[in-house]
Amino acid sequence: MPRKKKKSPDAVPLAVIKRLPLYHRYLTMLAQNDVERISSRELAAKMGITASQLRQDLSWFGSFGQQGYGYRVKDLLGEVSKILGLDRQFQMIILGAGNLARALVSYPNFRRRGFYVEAIFDSNPDLIGKQVNGVTIKDVKYLSEYLQQHTVDIGIITAPASVAQKLADTLVAGGVKAIWNFAPIHLKVPRDVVVENVQIGESLLTLSFRLQQQERRKS
Amino acid sequence: MPRKKKKSPDAVPLAVIKRLPLYHRYLTMLAQNDVERISSRELAAKMGITASQLRQDLSWFGSFGQQGYGYRVKDLLGEVSKILGLDRQFQMIILGAGNLARALVSYPNFRRRGFYVEAIFDSNPDLIGKQVNGVTIKDVKYLSEYLQQHTVDIGIITAPASVAQKLADTLVAGGVKAIWNFAPIHLKVPRDVVVENVQIGESLLTLSFRLQQQERRKS
Repeated sequence: MPRKKKKSPDAVPLAVIKRLPLYHRYLTMLAQNDVERISSRELAAKMGITASQLRQDLSWFGSFGQQGYGYRVKDLLGEVSKILGLDRQFQMIILGAGNLARALVSYPNFRRRGFYVEAIFDSNPDLIGKQVNGVTIKDVKYLSEYLQQHTVDIGIITAPASVAQKLADTLVAGGVKAIWNFAPIHLKVPRDVVVENVQIGESLLTLSFRLQQQERRKS
Repeated sequence: MPRKKKKSPDAVPLAVIKRLPLYHRYLTMLAQNDVERISSRELAAKMGITASQLRQDLSWFGSFGQQGYGYRVKDLLGEVSKILGLDRQFQMIILGAGNLARALVSYPNFRRRGFYVEAIFDSNPDLIGKQVNGVTIKDVKYLSEYLQQHTVDIGIITAPASVAQKLADTLVAGGVKAIWNFAPIHLKVPRDVVVENVQIGESLLTLSFRLQQQERRKS
């Protein structure tokens, strides 16, 4: 493949961004199975896209692989990891100490990939001071103070919708530039703050709608 | 607005489907605040879309609202609820009794909207027989038998990726037509089975990528 100039990473389309974690997942599996090299055709087939789509996606970030040889799995995995920011550490805090926080803190893949939960905050006096998987639950009234003293890359909001905006405001005021939001509301943040939403309730409603459609189609 | 013929609900675009839960959320909030009517312009503004987009979305399902009057909030909420299948009950089971299962079972909105978790299955003998929020954890080896004896509308997979496909196969063989998948793998199912994925790990990688991009832009 001829060397091409990298396109501006600012303009990477959302669809490409959303596929990057998939590349990472499949390349990790291949590396774990000691596969040394793979053609763009084979890798694309695994992901349910075309080889030309795959080459186009990767061309946003540079030139990888060689015509007639394909990709070295380990090298490409390393590049994709770097693109995703997995060659560094992210300090995270969780706001809201419910079951979802427990699930996130216990997720083994996060720590392995460099995502560290440093603290959990809650307002419930029964929870403050307790530990979840080695992480202490702190009083949310000290959140601003904590943000002054610690670098926090990602704030995770698992608290109820009613307090989510207020928590987001506190994170933003404390200099946090990325929010992972599980509360079912649209957060208002400045343009330089990145928000990624996981809308669990809405995903279930999408499923129930599609199930209904499927049943109607049959009847 | 003149009465228009309903378009085929089979062809509803995914983007419209994904907005339906948002309509439901905003209309519920309006109803809770005793708002009786709202113009398409106002409702659209709340959701960050245009009034014409909103009217187009709803036209997939029939003719609602009146020119110059807007929508009766309660009526439109009722219609959207029906479209989403919220006028009926869904029997659900969860496969995998970890923290995520705990979070889902405890989610108050599900039951209120007609989504009932009837049983949880796991293979861990330490968990089998215990209860989570009133729901009993059963031995996964009796899953097929359970599916023969009970109607299950939605199977929720929170188990690890390594067993997710096998569990999905068992659900499909047992007649389940909708799977809500939290495991980080692409499930293979027959065409008449609906799968909705919640890829929590991939959402975090998307966030870290976007944060990296933001930081590069500044430096």
